[in-house]
Amino acid sequence: MQGTMIYGPRDIRFENVPEPKIEKTTDAIIRLAVSCVCGSDLWSYRGTQVVEAPTPMGHEYCGYVEEVGSAVKSVRPGQFVVGSFAMSDNTCPHCRLGYQSSCQQREWVSRAQAPYMRVALADGTLVSTSDLPSKEMLPSLLASSDVLGTGWFAADAANVKKGSTVVVVGDGAVGLLGVLSAKQMGAGRIIAMSRHETRQKLAREFGATDIVTERGDAGIARIKELTKGIGADSVLECVGTQEAMQQAIQSTRPGGFVSHVGVPHGVKLDGQQAFFSHIHLHGGPAPVRRYLPTLIDLIAKEEIRPGKVFDLTLPLSQVAEGYRAMDERRAIKVLLQP
Amino acid sequence: MQGTMIYGPRDIRFENVPEPKIEKTTDAIIRLAVSCVCGSDLWSYRGTQVVEAPTPMGHEYCGYVEEVGSAVKSVRPGQFVVGSFAMSDNTCPHCRLGYQSSCQQREWVSRAQAPYMRVALADGTLVSTSDLPSKEMLPSLLASSDVLGTGWFAADAANVKKGSTVVVVGDGAVGLLGVLSAKQMGAGRIIAMSRHETRQKLAREFGATDIVTERGDAGIARIKELTKGIGADSVLECVGTQEAMQQAIQSTRPGGFVSHVGVPHGVKLDGQQAFFSHIHLHGGPAPVRRYLPTLIDLIAKEEIRPGKVFDLTLPLSQVAEGYRAMDERRAIKVLLQP
Repeated sequence: MQGTMIYGPRDIRFENVPEPKIEKTTDAIIRLAVSCVCGSDLWSYRGTQVVEAPTPMGHEYCGYVEEVGSAVKSVRPGQFVVGSFAMSDNTCPHCRLGYQSSCQQREWVSRAQAPYMRVALADGTLVSTSDLPSKEMLPSLLASSDVLGTGWFAADAANVKKGSTVVVVGDGAVGLLGVLSAKQMGAGRIIAMSRHETRQKLAREFGATDIVTERGDAGIARIKELTKGIGADSVLECVGTQEAMQQAIQSTRPGGFVSHVGVPHGVKLDGQQAFFSHIHLHGGPAPVRRYLPTLIDLIAKEEIRPGKVFDLTLPLSQVAEGYRAMDERRAIKVLLQP
Repeated sequence: MQGTMIYGPRDIRFENVPEPKIEKTTDAIIRLAVSCVCGSDLWSYRGTQVVEAPTPMGHEYCGYVEEVGSAVKSVRPGQFVVGSFAMSDNTCPHCRLGYQSSCQQREWVSRAQAPYMRVALADGTLVSTSDLPSKEMLPSLLASSDVLGTGWFAADAANVKKGSTVVVVGDGAVGLLGVLSAKQMGAGRIIAMSRHETRQKLAREFGATDIVTERGDAGIARIKELTKGIGADSVLECVGTQEAMQQAIQSTRPGGFVSHVGVPHGVKLDGQQAFFSHIHLHGGPAPVRRYLPTLIDLIAKEEIRPGKVFDLTLPLSQVAEGYRAMDERRAIKVLLQP
């Protein structure tokens, strides 16, 4: 079959790759219904993260179970399933605490921009839908696999509650779905930081009450102004840069919460700033598995439509164009059809 | 009167200073019943924090109200009061959230190693006892003013709950009272990291179930061994150095909580470590005022005896010897009698 590989900065190739096979009795093989390009894929695409050797790409997926290993009990061929980018046993102490993305047996997904993939620890990783979903629902179910699950974790880790004043730093798919998640959790006010009109529009559609276009010190000043000098209760840092983290910390009220869900690149926190700002800080790779049953349920009931973040659809074979469109910010998120 | 000044590294002088006076209508003047030397005073004593000019010292206090400004309503002359090192109005949005040490009107106490001192924002800062306390109770009430309040915040910020596995990094008075606080909050297991026999003994008396003498990687390995490879639920970082913070982060389970209550000196946090460790991080200058009513009540009922951290008592005039004894770790904490 053909799958997606990265060879170096801006060098994405759709080429022959081995077909996935059951390697352990706990594996499953799935046929992807849809796949996509993630904002985090751009770290290596842009060369920020060095590509040492040709590397398979893709970690967001949902689809149909083709085959399962002999030890798999909770899913069976023909079912529609969603999984997280972190494959987990869902039984170890870290999983039981709700941190499946730190599972003692964790493996990272990395071959999902392809028609078929192997999922390790299938019982712990995959969640099946009660019925086969309609075609219209596929983008939203795919979103739950990463960007929605990550945005949801961002809101949860930032302690968003009924009535909270929330700031979302980052207007990528995760930030936009952080807005949606905060809205679902009852936030009273949601301030989205965005300079891009199409993203601002989607942020408003997802529940943003205010848009801040300023950045840096001007952005911090604007948040302070909007919150009567107090700062926000909850700030979701959905980028992973030093600038975004500074924006987040300095926009938060003393005793408030900062979550960080974008893989940090070059972020250093000063101990005295963390201390005197009185913030709570929590984040990491989102334990999407913890939230999947809830998210799938909300999608099935059509209470949320996270699939709206996909504003460009391409055949899987044009994956390289998908990366280009996201890199150039022509698209928020690109859906790939196998 | 005579009070304590620092002129530079290891240069503490007890000398003539101006008598405090009511400067604002919201002030009170108190006569100190007892005072003491804080571990954090050693930062400037040791030269880690530069002393630019002769500076008055002391920020822990309790005593008798001598005089109040015309606007003061909640305390009156003759009452016994305890306050925090952060003077606060207790009415601003930050105070109402429980972060009085980030009060919008905050002032830091800095003249408490003296027989009399001025307390700003007296209504918001001072908490009176229902009766005049016995002499035996004074050290414990003094402890509530900072080291107990800070240890209590450390345990609270690290989410210590009934049954939690807790690690305390630092065997100074704050760390030892972090042990006592964790015990009061129902911790199931309390691991104190200490190499000093007298401190280990007091840690056990306060509720420590295990003592770890190793540091650095060996200390982390020992904690992992004691927790079946999982790590602790809650880790209290009660020092403020890079080494202590690393010890804390790496001893915590994914999804666990690290609190930091020692003013950081040279602490830098790596963004990727904070991310992939999946820790919650919270701390800062302890909002002691939030806890004072509870702590005073526990002391009055003799349910806790935090005053045991004072293992050397000196007349206030010998304050310089008090600093020496703590610097040389001959004493855990020095009580000063005016």
